[in-house]
Amino acid sequence: MKILLTDAGYIDPAPIRAAGHDVVLFSEAEPVPAEHRDAEGLVLWGGGGPGSADVLAEMPGYLTRLRWIQTLAAGPDNVLAVGFPDSVSITSGRHFHDRTVAEHAVALALGCARSLPAAVRAADRHEWEPNLGGPHPVHDPERLTTLLDARALVWGFGAIGQTTARLLTAFGASVRGVARTAGRRAGYEVVAEADIESVLPETDLLIMVLPSTPQTAGALSRSRLALLPRRAVVINVGRGTTVDQAALEAALRAGAISGAGLDVTDPEPLPAESTLWDAPNLLLTPHAAGGRVVGAVERILANAAAVEATPSDEPLTGLEAQVTRASH
Amino acid sequence: MKILLTDAGYIDPAPIRAAGHDVVLFSEAEPVPAEHRDAEGLVLWGGGGPGSADVLAEMPGYLTRLRWIQTLAAGPDNVLAVGFPDSVSITSGRHFHDRTVAEHAVALALGCARSLPAAVRAADRHEWEPNLGGPHPVHDPERLTTLLDARALVWGFGAIGQTTARLLTAFGASVRGVARTAGRRAGYEVVAEADIESVLPETDLLIMVLPSTPQTAGALSRSRLALLPRRAVVINVGRGTTVDQAALEAALRAGAISGAGLDVTDPEPLPAESTLWDAPNLLLTPHAAGGRVVGAVERILANAAAVEATPSDEPLTGLEAQVTRASH
Repeated sequence: MKILLTDAGYIDPAPIRAAGHDVVLFSEAEPVPAEHRDAEGLVLWGGGGPGSADVLAEMPGYLTRLRWIQTLAAGPDNVLAVGFPDSVSITSGRHFHDRTVAEHAVALALGCARSLPAAVRAADRHEWEPNLGGPHPVHDPERLTTLLDARALVWGFGAIGQTTARLLTAFGASVRGVARTAGRRAGYEVVAEADIESVLPETDLLIMVLPSTPQTAGALSRSRLALLPRRAVVINVGRGTTVDQAALEAALRAGAISGAGLDVTDPEPLPAESTLWDAPNLLLTPHAAGGRVVGAVERILANAAAVEATPSDEPLTGLEAQVTRASH
Repeated sequence: MKILLTDAGYIDPAPIRAAGHDVVLFSEAEPVPAEHRDAEGLVLWGGGGPGSADVLAEMPGYLTRLRWIQTLAAGPDNVLAVGFPDSVSITSGRHFHDRTVAEHAVALALGCARSLPAAVRAADRHEWEPNLGGPHPVHDPERLTTLLDARALVWGFGAIGQTTARLLTAFGASVRGVARTAGRRAGYEVVAEADIESVLPETDLLIMVLPSTPQTAGALSRSRLALLPRRAVVINVGRGTTVDQAALEAALRAGAISGAGLDVTDPEPLPAESTLWDAPNLLLTPHAAGGRVVGAVERILANAAAVEATPSDEPLTGLEAQVTRASH
């Protein structure tokens, strides 16, 4: 089977070729060359990735033999929006980014708790800052200084949120999730989003892992931020739009929370003239949590095998991470 | 029982008083007031802590009713050096710092892997640094960028090293320990120190947790550093003397390793004129890993009860974390 493989994912084509496929590397920023428009498989980011929207939008017009699209992004939103025919099955990058994004969320949380930005700036001044070391209380009422015993709340409790929860547990935090519906998931108590106001006042570490949707815009609002205790730290590895950024900046400047770690902002890139850059106790990374695809080769091989095993006039079944498409 | 309790440990005296003890807070920097020199118990840092060595050295002369010393430091080295009579039992702060120091070791490792110093400096310049984000290979041959699948080596495999190992495992690292003798400990393969040259070339993350002893001086020598692959990161949360600091700085400047996270240096504080401050890819914190005593109240209560239950002319037994003293 001919498979178009994006060059942006750092996916090794060797094992896919070894399984007998004709793998053609392509750039998502340019139209697929004419001689490769007969591909049956397409592997691309397909969601907030490096591709050009125009190039993607034209693909349904010329990839006429296409049967299957594998996205590397966790969500296939952009691919769905393009309108490929129903004969094209779409499989998502669900789980490809769980571990890297969860790791980054914990890196930001530890960076805030362990005052790493202050340590970097002190080192740049050649100063051994005595207040960063020496005897301290285990738990400072004014600020989060360790994940041990921290009351963590993970808002957005899908695969990435659950992976983050397990890491926080290893450090001795007590973790709850927040999702649309309450219950127990992956061994954790999950609070319904509608009840979040009742748990924010007892939260030391709030980790946001929400996608960008009309429903999540400004989810962490000014009034909800105001419910957090002064020692709280806010982390966002979801999407910048889910936090009222002006309210967060104001809370940092007022000392109403003790820190924030943001991997996402609104807009991105954050403009040089933004005042957010200089907010105190802020650790900001430039959307660097994910972008490293873990486990893609295995899924590509499994799904390519399922496609090959099915005659082209029959519906594809048994695909891993298949996306259910709304009928239209 | 009258117990002298250091004011440097942020230990809550309330539960100790509630158990019926006469708790007297004192400063380790000043001689114990005359009216409290009849104390039978003494709780102090006793090792690299905030006390004055002179004050400690005079204590055996006037604390004549003393039966038991509890140190908050993991090691009781300084207390042992003072020469209290054998009638004084010493219990250590073993385990009090396992979790905080292990947490800091992982914070430094993640800080290096996730390029947090570069992110802080870019934010200070109001720059959204595109190279820190975007698509990347999961594993960069040139530098450690994630703990996932990292080959970690924890040198010094006592309680702190083992706690660090468990955290690294949660992130998906494969972990081995190094100790004086080989074997399996806490579920991990432990390599003998004598064989370390054979494992350094296959190490992506070296975490040093060694105490300062004549035997550990310069343990990570220039020739051993040279065995690490270029992508390796070195973390030190043990003691500065255990690393050949000039060789480490040279390795960073030459790009022979991809980063280092140091919580300890030699000497401390690191002098302002040291060239180490400006070494590339260095994350330096000012001996901030520990200093937060976890679990001391429970041990103080248990040991005080054991002391009270034993007539003063009988040897103390059943103490938690009792230090065996060499006969002299």
